[in-house]
Amino acid sequence: MSDRLFIFDTTLRDGEQVPGCQLNTVEKIQVARQLEALGVDVIEAGFPISSPGDFNSVIEISKAVTWPTICALTRAVEKDIDVAAEALQAAKHKRIHTGIGTSDSHIRYKFNSTREEIIERAVAAVKYAKRYVEDVEFYAEDAGRTENEYLARVVEAVVKAGATVVNIPDTTGYCLPQEYGEKIKYLMEHVDGLSAGKAILSTHCHNDLGMATANTIAGVMNGARQAEVTINGIGERAGNTSLEEVAMILRCHKGIGIDTNINTQKIYPTSRMVSSLMNMPVQPNKAIVGRNAFAHSSGIHQDGVLKNVQTYEIIDPKDVGIDDNAIVLTARSGRAALKHRLSVLGVEMSGERLDATYQEFLKLADKKKEVNDDDILMLAGADRAAAHAVKLDYLQVTTGLGVRSVACIGLDIAGEKFEASASGNGPVDAAIKALKNIIKRQMVLKEFTIQAISKGSDDVGKVHMQVEYDGHVYYGFGANTDIVTASAEAYIDCINKFKK
Amino acid sequence: MSDRLFIFDTTLRDGEQVPGCQLNTVEKIQVARQLEALGVDVIEAGFPISSPGDFNSVIEISKAVTWPTICALTRAVEKDIDVAAEALQAAKHKRIHTGIGTSDSHIRYKFNSTREEIIERAVAAVKYAKRYVEDVEFYAEDAGRTENEYLARVVEAVVKAGATVVNIPDTTGYCLPQEYGEKIKYLMEHVDGLSAGKAILSTHCHNDLGMATANTIAGVMNGARQAEVTINGIGERAGNTSLEEVAMILRCHKGIGIDTNINTQKIYPTSRMVSSLMNMPVQPNKAIVGRNAFAHSSGIHQDGVLKNVQTYEIIDPKDVGIDDNAIVLTARSGRAALKHRLSVLGVEMSGERLDATYQEFLKLADKKKEVNDDDILMLAGADRAAAHAVKLDYLQVTTGLGVRSVACIGLDIAGEKFEASASGNGPVDAAIKALKNIIKRQMVLKEFTIQAISKGSDDVGKVHMQVEYDGHVYYGFGANTDIVTASAEAYIDCINKFKK
Repeated sequence: MSDRLFIFDTTLRDGEQVPGCQLNTVEKIQVARQLEALGVDVIEAGFPISSPGDFNSVIEISKAVTWPTICALTRAVEKDIDVAAEALQAAKHKRIHTGIGTSDSHIRYKFNSTREEIIERAVAAVKYAKRYVEDVEFYAEDAGRTENEYLARVVEAVVKAGATVVNIPDTTGYCLPQEYGEKIKYLMEHVDGLSAGKAILSTHCHNDLGMATANTIAGVMNGARQAEVTINGIGERAGNTSLEEVAMILRCHKGIGIDTNINTQKIYPTSRMVSSLMNMPVQPNKAIVGRNAFAHSSGIHQDGVLKNVQTYEIIDPKDVGIDDNAIVLTARSGRAALKHRLSVLGVEMSGERLDATYQEFLKLADKKKEVNDDDILMLAGADRAAAHAVKLDYLQVTTGLGVRSVACIGLDIAGEKFEASASGNGPVDAAIKALKNIIKRQMVLKEFTIQAISKGSDDVGKVHMQVEYDGHVYYGFGANTDIVTASAEAYIDCINKFKK
Repeated sequence: MSDRLFIFDTTLRDGEQVPGCQLNTVEKIQVARQLEALGVDVIEAGFPISSPGDFNSVIEISKAVTWPTICALTRAVEKDIDVAAEALQAAKHKRIHTGIGTSDSHIRYKFNSTREEIIERAVAAVKYAKRYVEDVEFYAEDAGRTENEYLARVVEAVVKAGATVVNIPDTTGYCLPQEYGEKIKYLMEHVDGLSAGKAILSTHCHNDLGMATANTIAGVMNGARQAEVTINGIGERAGNTSLEEVAMILRCHKGIGIDTNINTQKIYPTSRMVSSLMNMPVQPNKAIVGRNAFAHSSGIHQDGVLKNVQTYEIIDPKDVGIDDNAIVLTARSGRAALKHRLSVLGVEMSGERLDATYQEFLKLADKKKEVNDDDILMLAGADRAAAHAVKLDYLQVTTGLGVRSVACIGLDIAGEKFEASASGNGPVDAAIKALKNIIKRQMVLKEFTIQAISKGSDDVGKVHMQVEYDGHVYYGFGANTDIVTASAEAYIDCINKFKK
């Protein structure tokens, strides 16, 4: 059997479903290009039938990357498959990912169907997808809770119908590694099409009990040859399997005898890019990519044990692209230096867009002595703000201890100027109340997160917000060296997304 | 064999070693009492020889809790054991945890010793500890990389010498679940003292490759009957095994036939308390206790699949103590209501301290309509600030977009009043520059984190900072509805910790 594990990244599909993680098409292309540089084999680019945005993203990602296979998700429904095939037209290598629930709970409660009928629908969907593409992946949703004997019949049937990959998801994140490994082993042993090499099995594990990575590795050790993963393990609920953990386990444990095509030195920059664009913080003690992952407390007096770093470290941080001597740009850095740094970070930019970003870079470099990678990623995203209806013209806030916070705000709404003032509890509250004195709608702030993990008091603060209006929840984002301004910008970003 | 897994919590020892997570004795007692309510069997309270702070904490925790065994860490060194025994005097149930490295890498590079000599030192340490206490645990450091045959000889020898528990740590977080499970199985089969029931094996797994939980479960399924864990999986580098994951796996997978004494409904409050006191954010997609752990994106249009919640959820959020209808206190809540809520959150307070906290609570309730659990935990810790030399008297900051940030600060330094002003990039930068115009020392801000994950613009923001001064790094914390004030308070908190 092959010693190559294919990496199927679903950051842009299963990861992007998380509330607050939504990306626009430009950002998705940026992530897709970075995934290509990282060396993933398959990029799941979206679920085209679900929204015009997803449909469009699959088209644009298909055009933007060359080497990886582009995959589009569908239900086992003809119109889903039609739309997916249309979105994939421009892809150099294309795959349709179709499937249906196979556990008794799904068959009974979700489809009100029978085991035989589900097999028929599965086979029909695979055959229908084959009319459009050669490479068809089938997912047996909730396979983790599907009885092995029936699951083997489903897999046999879809492989016979032409599926090239069969995905065995632990949809609820419930399986133990031994159990999941045995399921894969059972399928490898009982499905003729697999032993004949007509198709490979794929793992898709969720982390609800903290064992997604271990389940994936157990699946691989028992014969699966594709792993479905996300950067930083993002995804619904407790998330998906982390790409970085699977890649580094196989790199460290050469005894397993299986490896991926991942360029591990791109792991850390990719992790930072996804965390920054999706506004999803990575906790300090996250394996491989957390801030503390390679930090020893040996400098702390409390720990009296003499430590030999060599004795304790199994991964060299440089192998995953963590470099303390990372290049920092300053006001003296030229346009070419910025372009190069953007390209290292996976952002391709030229012409007018690069000019505009360079101007913003110079303004920031003037305020801050050193402009780091996070700042640059922020600047690269900032130009999207340009086209919006409501703009922040000016803002003045007075706050502190022993004084009442007061704010005066100026807005430009489609060319017309407005000004209002208000006091509040803290500067952000005052600024938002002033804003609400201009935009008098029934808006409720549902969630408010400030991310400012940095090395100086003049660093860029990032704010994301969820505002409820007219029965919908909207997400907004702002970034500025002044966290109060960033908060006002995030609120305005929400307002600009309101369906009029 | 017993079907009971003992839970050994090392949040206060292995978890507390992480830079920035240090707690004072009052906070440690608060966590220890919460761990007692959670139902842990053993609390590792510190490493007494390492610092006077740790020594004192072990004494105070020993007095504060009743049911759990209190455990103190030592090296295999007589003076360590003497000091640990002294610190444990007041404990109702006490244990000394001693040990030494057993992998070839540790024996050669750390101890410059031989395998035989290491066994002699291990046996001598256990026998010496037995002079003080009946319950002695031995750790074979780096057991994960120790050859099984030699490890079995070490375990046999220390059990014969009187060890009641033998800890098999995967110190570098390198093992695969199958490998770690086989190690435990090998020891269970080859060590007479274990099959005779003279001692039990304990797991202690690190998460460097994301498999700490799976390794622990593999150990338990192969015969280990104690698991060493921390709340939220905190700990050095990528952290330790998460208590909440192990407890919920055993609760969900009744087929394993092993359970703990954990009161799972206390899991979420404990997670929040530890995250809040240690200023260690939990990432949204953390299993069991992350903000999104039980959040489905079914409300999002993008996800076209109809979902039946029952079909997808394996844990009822209420079972781990997550209650959306959590009691919220208001300005009308009495002193008794506050006392009750504090006690639910694990903080026992009475007399003058409760009075002072209630006054602070009323001030906050006056500003905010609803005071939530996070606010209350913050208030419970705020009274520590009282005794410090440098105090923030007043602060006034003007900031915004299109204006230059300017701050005026007033400090009280040991009774004397000072005032200074400065401008800066953003309000925090201006406030800190003004402060530095009064306190003219060579201080460098190394790290600056704002945590404000909340449901309103008037919620409490938390700031923690690391300031380098005179070759040392100091940690400071501030909390206020005004994030600028919270930042100034955090900086002052650092200054108050400077060694004069």
